[in-house]
Amino acid sequence: MTKWVYGFGDGKAEGDANMRDLLGGKGANLAEMSNLGLPVPPGFTITTEVCTYFYAHGRQYPQDLEAEIDAALAHVGKLTGRAFGDADRPLLVSVRSGARASMPGMMDTILNLGLNDKAVEALAREAGDARFAYDSYRRFIQMYSAVVLGLEHHLFEDALEELKSSRGHVQDTDLTAQDWKGLAKSYLSLVERESGKAFPQDPRRQLWGAIGAVFGSWMNARAIKYRELHAIPESWGTAVNVQAMVFGNMGETSATGVAFTRNPSTGEARLYGEFLINAQGEDVVAGIRTPQNLTEAAREEARTDKPSLERAMPSAFAEFKRISEVLEQHYRDMQDMEFTIERGKLWMLQTRNGKRTTRAALKVAVDMTNEGLISRKEAVQRIDPMSLDQLLHPTIDPNAERKLLGTGLPASPGAASGEIVLTSEEAENAKAGGRKVILVRVETSPEDIHGMHAAEGILTARGGMTSHAAVVARGMGKPCVSGFGALRIDPAKSTLSVGKSVLKAGDVITIDGSTGQVLQGKIAMLEPELSGDFAELMSWADEARRLKVRANADTPLDAQTARRFGAEGIGLCRTEHMFFDEGRIVAVREMILADDEKGRRGALAKLLPMQRGDFVELFTIMSGLPVTIRLLDPPLHEFLPHTDEEMKEVAAALGSSVEKLRRRAQELSEFNPMLGFRGCRLAIAYPEIAEMQARAIFEAAVEAAAKTDAPVRPEIMVPLVMTRMEFDLVKARIDAMANAVAAERKAKLSYDVGTMIELPRAALLSGEIAQSAEFFSFGTNDLTQTTLGISRDDAGSFLGTYTAKGILPADPFVTLDQDGVGELVRLAAARGREARPGIKLGICGEHGGDPASVAFCERTGLDYVSCSPYRLPIARLAAAQAALGAIATTEG
Amino acid sequence: MTKWVYGFGDGKAEGDANMRDLLGGKGANLAEMSNLGLPVPPGFTITTEVCTYFYAHGRQYPQDLEAEIDAALAHVGKLTGRAFGDADRPLLVSVRSGARASMPGMMDTILNLGLNDKAVEALAREAGDARFAYDSYRRFIQMYSAVVLGLEHHLFEDALEELKSSRGHVQDTDLTAQDWKGLAKSYLSLVERESGKAFPQDPRRQLWGAIGAVFGSWMNARAIKYRELHAIPESWGTAVNVQAMVFGNMGETSATGVAFTRNPSTGEARLYGEFLINAQGEDVVAGIRTPQNLTEAAREEARTDKPSLERAMPSAFAEFKRISEVLEQHYRDMQDMEFTIERGKLWMLQTRNGKRTTRAALKVAVDMTNEGLISRKEAVQRIDPMSLDQLLHPTIDPNAERKLLGTGLPASPGAASGEIVLTSEEAENAKAGGRKVILVRVETSPEDIHGMHAAEGILTARGGMTSHAAVVARGMGKPCVSGFGALRIDPAKSTLSVGKSVLKAGDVITIDGSTGQVLQGKIAMLEPELSGDFAELMSWADEARRLKVRANADTPLDAQTARRFGAEGIGLCRTEHMFFDEGRIVAVREMILADDEKGRRGALAKLLPMQRGDFVELFTIMSGLPVTIRLLDPPLHEFLPHTDEEMKEVAAALGSSVEKLRRRAQELSEFNPMLGFRGCRLAIAYPEIAEMQARAIFEAAVEAAAKTDAPVRPEIMVPLVMTRMEFDLVKARIDAMANAVAAERKAKLSYDVGTMIELPRAALLSGEIAQSAEFFSFGTNDLTQTTLGISRDDAGSFLGTYTAKGILPADPFVTLDQDGVGELVRLAAARGREARPGIKLGICGEHGGDPASVAFCERTGLDYVSCSPYRLPIARLAAAQAALGAIATTEG
Repeated sequence: MTKWVYGFGDGKAEGDANMRDLLGGKGANLAEMSNLGLPVPPGFTITTEVCTYFYAHGRQYPQDLEAEIDAALAHVGKLTGRAFGDADRPLLVSVRSGARASMPGMMDTILNLGLNDKAVEALAREAGDARFAYDSYRRFIQMYSAVVLGLEHHLFEDALEELKSSRGHVQDTDLTAQDWKGLAKSYLSLVERESGKAFPQDPRRQLWGAIGAVFGSWMNARAIKYRELHAIPESWGTAVNVQAMVFGNMGETSATGVAFTRNPSTGEARLYGEFLINAQGEDVVAGIRTPQNLTEAAREEARTDKPSLERAMPSAFAEFKRISEVLEQHYRDMQDMEFTIERGKLWMLQTRNGKRTTRAALKVAVDMTNEGLISRKEAVQRIDPMSLDQLLHPTIDPNAERKLLGTGLPASPGAASGEIVLTSEEAENAKAGGRKVILVRVETSPEDIHGMHAAEGILTARGGMTSHAAVVARGMGKPCVSGFGALRIDPAKSTLSVGKSVLKAGDVITIDGSTGQVLQGKIAMLEPELSGDFAELMSWADEARRLKVRANADTPLDAQTARRFGAEGIGLCRTEHMFFDEGRIVAVREMILADDEKGRRGALAKLLPMQRGDFVELFTIMSGLPVTIRLLDPPLHEFLPHTDEEMKEVAAALGSSVEKLRRRAQELSEFNPMLGFRGCRLAIAYPEIAEMQARAIFEAAVEAAAKTDAPVRPEIMVPLVMTRMEFDLVKARIDAMANAVAAERKAKLSYDVGTMIELPRAALLSGEIAQSAEFFSFGTNDLTQTTLGISRDDAGSFLGTYTAKGILPADPFVTLDQDGVGELVRLAAARGREARPGIKLGICGEHGGDPASVAFCERTGLDYVSCSPYRLPIARLAAAQAALGAIATTEG
Repeated sequence: MTKWVYGFGDGKAEGDANMRDLLGGKGANLAEMSNLGLPVPPGFTITTEVCTYFYAHGRQYPQDLEAEIDAALAHVGKLTGRAFGDADRPLLVSVRSGARASMPGMMDTILNLGLNDKAVEALAREAGDARFAYDSYRRFIQMYSAVVLGLEHHLFEDALEELKSSRGHVQDTDLTAQDWKGLAKSYLSLVERESGKAFPQDPRRQLWGAIGAVFGSWMNARAIKYRELHAIPESWGTAVNVQAMVFGNMGETSATGVAFTRNPSTGEARLYGEFLINAQGEDVVAGIRTPQNLTEAAREEARTDKPSLERAMPSAFAEFKRISEVLEQHYRDMQDMEFTIERGKLWMLQTRNGKRTTRAALKVAVDMTNEGLISRKEAVQRIDPMSLDQLLHPTIDPNAERKLLGTGLPASPGAASGEIVLTSEEAENAKAGGRKVILVRVETSPEDIHGMHAAEGILTARGGMTSHAAVVARGMGKPCVSGFGALRIDPAKSTLSVGKSVLKAGDVITIDGSTGQVLQGKIAMLEPELSGDFAELMSWADEARRLKVRANADTPLDAQTARRFGAEGIGLCRTEHMFFDEGRIVAVREMILADDEKGRRGALAKLLPMQRGDFVELFTIMSGLPVTIRLLDPPLHEFLPHTDEEMKEVAAALGSSVEKLRRRAQELSEFNPMLGFRGCRLAIAYPEIAEMQARAIFEAAVEAAAKTDAPVRPEIMVPLVMTRMEFDLVKARIDAMANAVAAERKAKLSYDVGTMIELPRAALLSGEIAQSAEFFSFGTNDLTQTTLGISRDDAGSFLGTYTAKGILPADPFVTLDQDGVGELVRLAAARGREARPGIKLGICGEHGGDPASVAFCERTGLDYVSCSPYRLPIARLAAAQAALGAIATTEG
C-alpha cells in the first residue's frame, strides 16, 4: 500500500533529506531537521505522488489519503496538545506547497488555518491578546478566500480601508481588537455574498480546501510558464506541507527572521541575517518595517541603533547560532534558514542550501574545502560553470540605477558603455580618437570585424544568440546585445529610435550582454577578479578533468587571452578572419576577381607573407601547445563589397570596373550560402588558395620553431568535407607544399592533417574519412544546422516557440542536441576510431563552452573541447564536473 | 603463373564471351566466334591484366609476356602459313585496343603491321597488284607514325598533296604503283627526319611499338576524360587484339561491310547493312564512296541500281546471312557485325550487341520474346529505363537541320518551339491568343508557375538540373533547358543575346531539353508513341515489379497524366502549388500580411473552398488509389511579390501599404531559406493554416466519396519534421479537424497521418517518430541537401567539378547518394519498422524517377517510389529491373 503522508516533529520524522522527490524540498528538509532533533513545529507532508495521482485520476484523491491525514493530524495534536476546533486549545496549522525544485508561481502560504468563530476566542484567551487573535482571524479569512475560494484580494483591502476611514485611522496599528473583530465579521459576510456560500467554519473542510488549492496551483498558468522556462517536468508534482503554527507575533518576546550561515553576496563565513520582533514571516520580506541585524558585529558595521538578536534575545540567539552551525555541518553547504521565536522559544521553519552570487559561491566552496568540510572535488562540483561568465566580464554595479530602453538577447556577456556609432568606420575613428563607443547595427557582417574590435560593445537589431554579431563578440569577449527588435536605425539622420525614445550618434548608452538590457547613459561597473578563490578553484578543476580544453582563436590577441584563461592549445583558428584586415582585403578581392589561376596566384602571393606572419605570432604565443588551423571556409561573396558606394571604392582600388565587380558578385551570390560554395569546395576548385595557406603555415612553423627553440607541429584542418576523396585531394596539396617548404628551408616538418566533421554525410562516412584524416574536429555549429535543417541566422523566427513549447529542450546552437546531432557525433567517433585507433577527436564551435555539451563530450570520450577564449573557464570547470560525474547543485 | 595471352582462330579459342573483363569486349567476342566455328582471321588477345601490370610497374611488361606473344604469333603463322618478315608469305596483322566497355578516345586501329621494304614486295607479288601493296605500305607507315611515333598526321598528308600536284593529279586513284612506292619511300625519310630514327623495318619491333601505343593510349587525355564522363574505372585497363590481316581491297571479288541482324532504327527483324567492293573497313565509315545495300529488299526500297551483296556475291552473302542468324541465336540479341570478303572468302571481324534507338530496342525485345528467343523478364531487362524519356516527349526530327545558338543543361526532356517571351504574364497572354511561346527567364520562381504552364518550354540562364525551373518543368512534362550561362537578357529592350546573336521577344526558338540545345527558328518534331511495343513491354514490367509506383502530382491535370502513365496513387501533392493560382494568391498574401490569428483565419476561410475543390477533383480522378497530400511547405516569403512594381499592385489589391508589405517581406526574408521558417514549422507557428488544409482534405474526401461511390482514405503528410513532438502537435490539429468534419458531415473518416523524412535528425530519430507517424515518405531532395550540405540551387558552381573529378559518382540530386543519404534511409527504414511493424515507406522527390535510385529503394525494401508523371514509365521499368535483380545491358 502506498504511503501518502509522512509525519515529522518531536525529534524524529518518517522522511529525510534524501526523499526530496517524494516530499519536495521543504518537506524533506523539515523531516531532516526533525531527525536532527532540532525544534521544528510538528506537522506532516502529503507526498508529490498524491499530486501525480490527483491529475492522473481526474482530480480525485487516493482512497486512503483521508485516513492517513486524519491520523497525521491526530499525531500533531498529540504532540502539541491541541485539536482542530478545540474550544480551549485549537490546533492551528500552516499549509504550504513544496515541489522538488523551488518554484515561484505556485500557491502562497496559508497561515492560521483552523481558526473559526470559536477558535479565535480560544486563541485570544491563550495569547491574552484579543487584538492579535482577531487580526490573525481576518488575515486567515482574507488569505484563504483569495487562494482557495478565488475571491479578489482587493475586496478585502477595500473593506479594511473603509473601516479605517470610517474610524478616521490611518495605520493598521490604530485599530483596536474590536475593530478587527468587526472586520473579521464583515469579511465573513463578504465571502458569503461574493461566493454564494458561507466561509467554512469546519477546520477539516478548511484543510481539504487548502490541500486542493495547492495541488490545483500546480497547473495554474504561472506555474506552467515557470516550468516551461526552467525545464521542470510536469510529472514531478508538488507536495503539501501541513505544520502546526508558531507565532512570531505574540508580543515582544516573539520574533521571526531569515538567515544564511554565510554571507550570500560575498561568501564571508559569518552568520548573516535579519529579524523582526513581534512579527510574522511575511513581514520580514514585505519591507514595511526595517528588519534588524542578527549579530552584533553586523549591527556595528551597519551603524544602527536597533538592537541585534544577539543583544535582544541572547539565549534564543545562542540556540539559533548553534543550530545554524549544526545545519551547515550536516548539509555541508551554506544554509538559508527561516525561524520563529514564540515567546522566547526558537522554532526552525525551513532550511535549504542558500542561493549565492558567483563570487560567494567560489569563496564558500574554497573556504569549506580549507575548513575540511568538503573535498576539492565537491568544491568543484558546487559551482555552476555558467555562473563564471559573471566573473569574467565587467558587470553593471547592482546598486546603480538603470534607465532601461528595452531588452534584446543576451548575446555575449559583460556590460559596456559608450557613444553610439552606426558604422564600423566611425567606430574605428572614435577608437583612434580615444573615445569609447557602442557599435549599433541592424546586423553585422564580416566586414564589421574591425568596427567590432574598436567598439566596447555591439548592439544589433536583428540576429539571434548565434548570429554573426553574437558569435564574433563572444569570441572577442565583448558584450553584445543582439536581436533588439524594437530598435529602428535611420542612417540618413544618424539617429536610432526605440519606441518613442530617439537617440543620436554620440549619445551614450550602456548594454548589458548578460541580461540583454539596453540602458540610457553611462552606468557604474564592477571589474572582474580572476585571482584568489577563482584561481584556486580552477586549479582544482584542472586536477579533476580528463578533457583537454582548447580555444577558438583567430588572432594573436585571441591567443594571448586564451593562454590567460588556461587554453591547452588552439582548437580552431579561422584563417578567414585574417582576410578581412584592411591591408589584406584588397588582395583577397583581387584574387576573387582574377580571371584565371595565374591572376589568383598573383593575388595570393601578396597574402602569403601576411598569413605567414600571423601564424608565426600564433605559434610563438602558443609555443609548446597544439594549434589547429582551418583552411579558408566561407563563401567568397562574403569578401566582396555590398553597397554601390563600396563597390565603386573597391573597383577603383583594384583598377577594375564596378560592372565586373557586380557581375562577379552576382555569379557568386547564393540562395543558401550555408549550403553553398564554401569549405573545402573552394580548395577543390581553387587549390592555389589551400596551397598558399599551407605554405604560410609550414613556413611559419619553421620560423616559429627557430624563434622559440621548440618544435611546432601544426594541425591543418580541412573544412566541410563530405567524402574521403575531397579530403585526399586537399591533403595531397598540403603534403606537396610541406615537401616543398621542407626542401626550401632544409627543415624537417611534422604536422597533422585532419578534418572538420560538420556534415551528416561526413559523420556517416567517418570510417572512410578516418583512413586519411589524422584528426576529427566536430564542427557542431554547422552539423546542427544541417542535421536539424535550421539556419542559425534565420532560426529566430521559430526557435523561441520551439523551446517554449518544449519541442526542443534548449536552443540547439547553445546546447548540443544530443539525440540528433549527438548521435552523429557518437557514431562518427566510433567509426573514426575503428578505422584509426587513437584518432584525435575534438569539438569546436559554440558548444565547446556549454556545460551540458561538455558533459556530452566527456561521456562520448572525445579528447578535447575548443571554445572562445572567454568561455575557457566555463569549459574547464564543466569538463571537471563531467569527469567527476555530477552536475553541480548549490540551491535548495 | 598468369596467362597473359589468349589465342583464337581455326574454329577454337582459349577464351570465350564470358571473359570480357579479361579480354575486353572485342577479344571476348572474337574468341566466342572462333569457338562457334565461324571464319575468324586467327589472332590473339593480350589481356587487360597486362595493362594493369604495365601501370602498376612503371610501364614495364610482365616477364613472360614476350615468350607468350612469340608463341601466339607462331601459332597464327602456323594457321595462316605465314611468318613475320617472310620474303614470300609475310604475316601481316592488325592491332586494336579493346576495353571491357566500348571506349572511343583510345588508340586507333593499326592495319597492315608487318609490312616493310621486303614484305611489301611479297605482298605485291601475292596480290598480283603492286599498286595495292605500296598503297597499303604507305598507309601503314602513316598510321604507325602518327599513332606510335607521335608524328603529326598533316606531314604525311602534305607530302601526298605535294606528290599529287607535282604529278598534276587530283584524286588518289590517279596515282600509279610507282607513285605510291615513291611516296612510301619519301614517308620513310620523312619519319627519319622528323623523329631522328629510321622507321622500324623489323615487324616484331613494329608490333611491340603498337602494343605499347595501345596501353599508352589508356592514359591519354581523351581516354581519361571519357572514363570520367562514363564512370569507367581506370583499373579496368584495356586489352590488345592482334589479328591476321584479311583484305577487302584485293580486287573486285573482295569487299568489306558492317551489318545489324535487325534494323537498329526501327527494330524491324530484317538483316540490315552496307558494304563496299574492293575496300577496307575504314572506307565504309569514311563516306567517300557511297556504300551499297546488303540485301535485295533493301536495295529495292532504296531505289538504287548499285547491286546488293545478295546479288553481287550470292554465296558469300548466303554464308554471311547464315552466320548472322547463328550469332543472333547464340547471343540472343541483335548483333552489330563487321565482315570482310577476301577474294570471295568471308571473314568475320567483329560482333557485338548492337546499339539501337529506344523504339528499336522495344521492338526487338518484344519481337524476340514473341519469337521465343528471350523471356519476358529478359525483355524487360533489355531496355534502359532512362531511354524511355525519348519516347514520352516530342523529339526533334533527327533529319532536321539545326541552327545551334548554344547548349545549356538538359533539364527536362523533350523539345519545343515557340516565340520568345520574357515574362510569365506575356506567356499567359500569348497562350490566350493561341500563340506558342518559350518562356525565357534568368531563373524562375514559384510565381512563374502559370507562365510555365502557358509556355511550350522553359529556358533559363541560371540554375542547375534541379533548379526550380527544372523540377517544375519535369513535373509538368515540359521541355526545359536551364543554366544556359551564355544567355544575357535585357528586359528594358525586350531582347536577349547569346554571344553575338541578338534575338527579340517574338522571335521563334526551339529548345531541346534532352540535349540542352537551344536552336534558332522552328524545327520539325516527332510525336511520342505510347501504344504497341511500349505498352506491351510496360505490362511485362508491371508483372515483374514489387515496388509500387506513384506520382508527384499537384493538379488535376497532373493527376490525369499520372493515371495515363500508370500511377498507382499520388505520393506527393504539394499543396502550395495550388496557392499560386491567380484567384488564390491574393488570399494567401492577405493571410501572410494579417496582424493576428483572426486576420489569418479570415484569409484562410477564403482559400478553404478552393483547396477543397482541388482535392475533390484529385480524389475523384484518383478514385480507388491512395493520395498523399503534403501540408504547406515553402517559406512564406515565396508568396510575396518581389519587385517594386508588383509590391504596388499587391498593396493596392490588398488595401495595404507598400511599406507594410516591404516590412513583412523584410521580416520573412532569410539568409538560408532552405533551412528556414518552413515545413511544419509553419504549422507549429500558425496552426490555423494546417487546420484549414486538413479541413479542406476531409471535406473533399467526404464529397469525393459520395461522388464516386468509393471510399477515400487520404494520407496527410507533415513536412520537415525534426522531432516527434512537432509531428504530434500537428497531428493533434489534424485529428481534431477530422473529428469536427466527421461530426458536421455525419461521415466516418479514415485517413493516415505520416511525415516526410527529409532531415538527418528525423532519419536518426525515426524510431520515435514512427510511434506517432503512420507512414514515412523520404524527401530525398531535401535529405540530400542537408546530409551533403549542398543547396541544389547553388550547387552548379562546384557540382560539375565534383562529378568530373569523381568526388561524387553522380549528381546526388539526380541519383541518390547511397553511401550517405542512402545510409540514413536504410537506418530510418529499419528504425521506423522496429517501432511500427508494417509502416508504409515510400520515396518522393526527383530520385523516385531515377533507375539507380529505384534499384536502391527495391534493395531497401521500400513500399513505393513516387516521381513526376512523365517519369512513371521509367520508374515502372526500373522497379521491374530492380526486382529482377539485374541492370539492363543492351550494348556491346
